[in-house]
Amino acid sequence: MTDQAAAIQGDDSLSEADRLGLYRVLLSRRDVRGQFLPDPIPDEVLARILVAAHHAPSVGFMQPWSFILVRSPEVRERIKNAFAKANDEAARMFEGEAQSTYRSLKLEGILESPINICVTCDRDRAGPVVLGRTHIPTMDLYSTVCAVENLWLAARAEGLGLGWVSIISEPALKEILGLPDHVVPVAYLCLGRVSHFFAQPELETKGWRKRLPLADLVSLDRWEGPRDEDLGKALTEAQDKAERGEIV
Amino acid sequence: MTDQAAAIQGDDSLSEADRLGLYRVLLSRRDVRGQFLPDPIPDEVLARILVAAHHAPSVGFMQPWSFILVRSPEVRERIKNAFAKANDEAARMFEGEAQSTYRSLKLEGILESPINICVTCDRDRAGPVVLGRTHIPTMDLYSTVCAVENLWLAARAEGLGLGWVSIISEPALKEILGLPDHVVPVAYLCLGRVSHFFAQPELETKGWRKRLPLADLVSLDRWEGPRDEDLGKALTEAQDKAERGEIV
Repeated sequence: MTDQAAAIQGDDSLSEADRLGLYRVLLSRRDVRGQFLPDPIPDEVLARILVAAHHAPSVGFMQPWSFILVRSPEVRERIKNAFAKANDEAARMFEGEAQSTYRSLKLEGILESPINICVTCDRDRAGPVVLGRTHIPTMDLYSTVCAVENLWLAARAEGLGLGWVSIISEPALKEILGLPDHVVPVAYLCLGRVSHFFAQPELETKGWRKRLPLADLVSLDRWEGPRDEDLGKALTEAQDKAERGEIV
Repeated sequence: MTDQAAAIQGDDSLSEADRLGLYRVLLSRRDVRGQFLPDPIPDEVLARILVAAHHAPSVGFMQPWSFILVRSPEVRERIKNAFAKANDEAARMFEGEAQSTYRSLKLEGILESPINICVTCDRDRAGPVVLGRTHIPTMDLYSTVCAVENLWLAARAEGLGLGWVSIISEPALKEILGLPDHVVPVAYLCLGRVSHFFAQPELETKGWRKRLPLADLVSLDRWEGPRDEDLGKALTEAQDKAERGEIV
């Protein structure tokens, strides 16, 4: 038997239940900030979620990610202070009513969640020349983001909430976590059980921005190219269904 | 009823079947290059996959993505030529046996797949100041990558293969697709039915790189910080299960 033949799965089909499960998880995933419960996460659950992240696609099979699990209250206190400083700077970038709304939003759950995870990208993990990163040098960062999204979806499937804290200075984050120069902190995440999940994104509910009509974002063959009318109808219908929680 | 109360779903729990479905899709997702069939993709299926992408997390609910569906044989021929040029440059960056192996790999399915999709990021979509992008300016690119990963997983759940073509010059891609300066082509994807999915990543089977032991990539509280022995065991066990196709 050749290597290639050995690598072909006997049955590679997924069931209708698997298909529905994927969509249900995708559509009910939320960026959680304010609903965390302090309950610890069992090791087996955390392990499954991290395996999901580790099975993300990566350029040249580079697997550039590492996972720093931040449990220490002292470390989290320092992260929280770095967030608070950045968040105050950020608020002042908005004017008038937007600034008041911004200041009213809860944008992280660093101390309330039982665990934080920093997902990093080691740019040197596979040497200087990486298959698939030769022309788009950010591909390893993009691979790491795929791991974050896998982790997020697996967390939701396990009934756990996750929030991505992006309002923080990268140099501060690197200093607090002791990252060497060649390691980028791609995502700082808060993970934990939650009292409930919202049906819609909070920024949508609070009027910050609306969900865009998907059909407007799809064109053929070039930027702002022609539209396919039948596909446009299918897109609008599928989006409406998804927003009613009915997709499939 | 307050807005917030209205936004809470009556039942936000997912079933065990949903949880298993998510893991099955995640673990059987592959980067497909050589197994595409030419069959067209029905509009309803394509619409569901794009809805999955559109429900990705995005910084400040910015939804910076657009989707250019490339069907035109002429446009795809130009993309294929841009790939071939970059791929030849890339091959010459590897030495000795690695170069021969590199040249033997099939790294794209641009012409064989029924449709290509360029997923772009419009950096101006929500104005110059974006909630959550104030301190990490790449957050909108990262949001777009989350949309790519959602799209990829939904494709797999629908039985479709997807491959990410990253060996291409970004300026060439921008020129061929007519992207304005403020729009980044984050991912160029090939999508379609496939003859089969491989059980393992091709680069692993062909000996390019091995899958890393997950337990080595997880530490506590700081870069190369302490390890939790019990969690380490759980990680190794979960990874072994996943590689045997048994996760859950």
